[in-house]
Amino acid sequence: MHPLVLQSDFGLDDGAVSAMYGVAVGVDPQLRIHDVTHNIPPYDIWEGSYRLAQVVSYWPAGTVFVSVVDPGVGSDRLSVVARTSTGHLVVTPDNGTLTHLHAIFGIEELREIDETTNRREGSEHSYTFHGRDIYAYTGARLAAGAITFEQVGRSVDLSRLVSLRVEEPRLADGAVHGSIDALDVRYGSLWTSIPRELFGRLGLEHGDRVQLRVTHNDRVVHSAQMRYVPSFAAVEIGESLLYVNSLDRMAVAINRGSYARAFDLRTGSGWKVSLAPVV
Amino acid sequence: MHPLVLQSDFGLDDGAVSAMYGVAVGVDPQLRIHDVTHNIPPYDIWEGSYRLAQVVSYWPAGTVFVSVVDPGVGSDRLSVVARTSTGHLVVTPDNGTLTHLHAIFGIEELREIDETTNRREGSEHSYTFHGRDIYAYTGARLAAGAITFEQVGRSVDLSRLVSLRVEEPRLADGAVHGSIDALDVRYGSLWTSIPRELFGRLGLEHGDRVQLRVTHNDRVVHSAQMRYVPSFAAVEIGESLLYVNSLDRMAVAINRGSYARAFDLRTGSGWKVSLAPVV
Amino acid sequence: MHPLVLQSDFGLDDGAVSAMYGVAVGVDPQLRIHDVTHNIPPYDIWEGSYRLAQVVSYWPAGTVFVSVVDPGVGSDRLSVVARTSTGHLVVTPDNGTLTHLHAIFGIEELREIDETTNRREGSEHSYTFHGRDIYAYTGARLAAGAITFEQVGRSVDLSRLVSLRVEEPRLADGAVHGSIDALDVRYGSLWTSIPRELFGRLGLEHGDRVQLRVTHNDRVVHSAQMRYVPSFAAVEIGESLLYVNSLDRMAVAINRGSYARAFDLRTGSGWKVSLAPVV
Repeated sequence: MHPLVLQSDFGLDDGAVSAMYGVAVGVDPQLRIHDVTHNIPPYDIWEGSYRLAQVVSYWPAGTVFVSVVDPGVGSDRLSVVARTSTGHLVVTPDNGTLTHLHAIFGIEELREIDETTNRREGSEHSYTFHGRDIYAYTGARLAAGAITFEQVGRSVDLSRLVSLRVEEPRLADGAVHGSIDALDVRYGSLWTSIPRELFGRLGLEHGDRVQLRVTHNDRVVHSAQMRYVPSFAAVEIGESLLYVNSLDRMAVAINRGSYARAFDLRTGSGWKVSLAPVV
Repeated sequence: MHPLVLQSDFGLDDGAVSAMYGVAVGVDPQLRIHDVTHNIPPYDIWEGSYRLAQVVSYWPAGTVFVSVVDPGVGSDRLSVVARTSTGHLVVTPDNGTLTHLHAIFGIEELREIDETTNRREGSEHSYTFHGRDIYAYTGARLAAGAITFEQVGRSVDLSRLVSLRVEEPRLADGAVHGSIDALDVRYGSLWTSIPRELFGRLGLEHGDRVQLRVTHNDRVVHSAQMRYVPSFAAVEIGESLLYVNSLDRMAVAINRGSYARAFDLRTGSGWKVSLAPVV
Repeated sequence: MHPLVLQSDFGLDDGAVSAMYGVAVGVDPQLRIHDVTHNIPPYDIWEGSYRLAQVVSYWPAGTVFVSVVDPGVGSDRLSVVARTSTGHLVVTPDNGTLTHLHAIFGIEELREIDETTNRREGSEHSYTFHGRDIYAYTGARLAAGAITFEQVGRSVDLSRLVSLRVEEPRLADGAVHGSIDALDVRYGSLWTSIPRELFGRLGLEHGDRVQLRVTHNDRVVHSAQMRYVPSFAAVEIGESLLYVNSLDRMAVAINRGSYARAFDLRTGSGWKVSLAPVV
């Protein structure tokens, strides 16, 4: 018996998530079911992919994740289960949701869900809610040990894995360059794609000043200096800071403010950042 | 031991739902407690009734639901437990919350909660939170097997069941007529009261064009043509579609858009739809 | 094994709460994990403190609470576990979060978390997410019985407990005086700090009229008369009422309306109320 952890863009205002829970409980009443979040913005595969990567390593090996951000339901996109190098399983439409998991941790094996055997009984006429009828059902059966990973369906070549375009963070011209991958939503911090290790090559230490530059579609939209510090408490309230976030990547914030809102910055492709020493 | 599933209009911003959980855990620490949703709009009995009907059949028989949308707390409205033909129990104020369950699945027996025996100890001076003191407490005891359905209280004649007015969907003048019962909140799809079967009598097939007409208080407020298709993926992004939703009823959407927002359409009594073949 | 109940200002839009859950499940897969709320407004220690006091007594003795509203993460604020007179444990930064629990129920013992032994393995380089690395981890170990309260760390003198300023409700000049502690968020009711018992000294009975006066920073901003009644159902829809809330304190509402929104009233220091008989 492994934990089952659900994620979707369904929100919590209607009964969609509850229907998924009910199907899982019906598979095995002993299952422990939890959530990543169900507030992924509708159809936002990038955000779904990122949130999985944000949490997966904090869950025990063997945990089965189900992620349903599925604008292509009913198309020929595959339904798959991925096994990560960290020993987790992820049940999802293969539409880019596995992008960050693959880039950061690595996917080791991918299997296509055989929907003739892995589908909730009585759901043959339902074409719009695979999250409930196939993904939650299959995830629950994997978590409960009712089927093995091999029984999901045939193995799929990893080269078929659908990935969103991710630009590799890099060191160039004395600066590190990356993108704004996500926000720490409640606090408005910018979470960049730049790993602590890459940033470390600039040779900066806690207390040093850093030049941040943000571009949107290659146009500079924001530029500021701030100190690189271990935590929010190292700066005054209202002061900006550069720090290492809980994903071990560089992040930018205003202590008790919202950096994103203060400077109207967003996430996603097109939003790039660079960090350089102040000389 | 059966699952306990809670629903309310309390929201998740304060401690009200947590207090209900605590009471249930206090009844039996082994209980598995889950949710339908706690974001029913305040006092919206119709929506509470609809969401129960949306999810109940996906939960195992024996599951005990507690639904607290209770504008009449402290009035003479009854506190009841209903047994459905699907083998589920629903603990709720009898204020219309059982309308859709009764119409779609059927209520087989209704018992009034005897509040002298089925009330949390120490709650005698609390008149405003029956959700915690009576409903969660009684639901937890039913789910845990601490009391039987018969021990809830005396049987109440089913003719006393309070029902909201529901207009029967019907075929007339070559069109099917119904109402907008609810939204698929996150995606803005219109969920009508028209069953797939009734729609089927129009003799239309996947790919056929359909004329949608929406009236509000008998005034036509929207009219459009779209194709009847199996799923969102059958139309272009931004195109409208008619499909069968996860309740096996007809629904209208814009692929990756919000139909409700696009045309400012709402739900509830007064909002009617008709569907007819395009001739 | 005791229940573990989490609270934070993280919201449910990203993966922060899920990471805390994952860490707790990793400590012991048998743990039952629940929530107070994760929608405490960012950095709002007062609200975090109030919500704990709102729910704690409805959970069984032995329940372990983890509350993370932590604007001072990385500063020298202590990480503590408090044992209440009600037999609950609360894992939290000592920043005022224990104010209402201490004032209403009493804290009996306080221990500082020894972070050399009570820290998630591998989290030594993370300075910004003690909620996951220390609080959820320690709370889970306490709930699972992996460590005892004594093993948390050294005992701290209760006089060191950080408390927010709370004004004592009082009877003066024929009126009871208190503050607006919180809102019943969904319904817009004002929850005052005035206990039913203190109000009782005015000698009023159900049905009697009461004069409410609200001041903000000592300026009168609202004044109204209403009846003191047992519950919402005792007044007309749209009528105001004074009642005893589920914390056994005086509260003000509009039946099926929002008092707070109707008169633009808020909570927190500076918002005071008085209640007096209408003569």
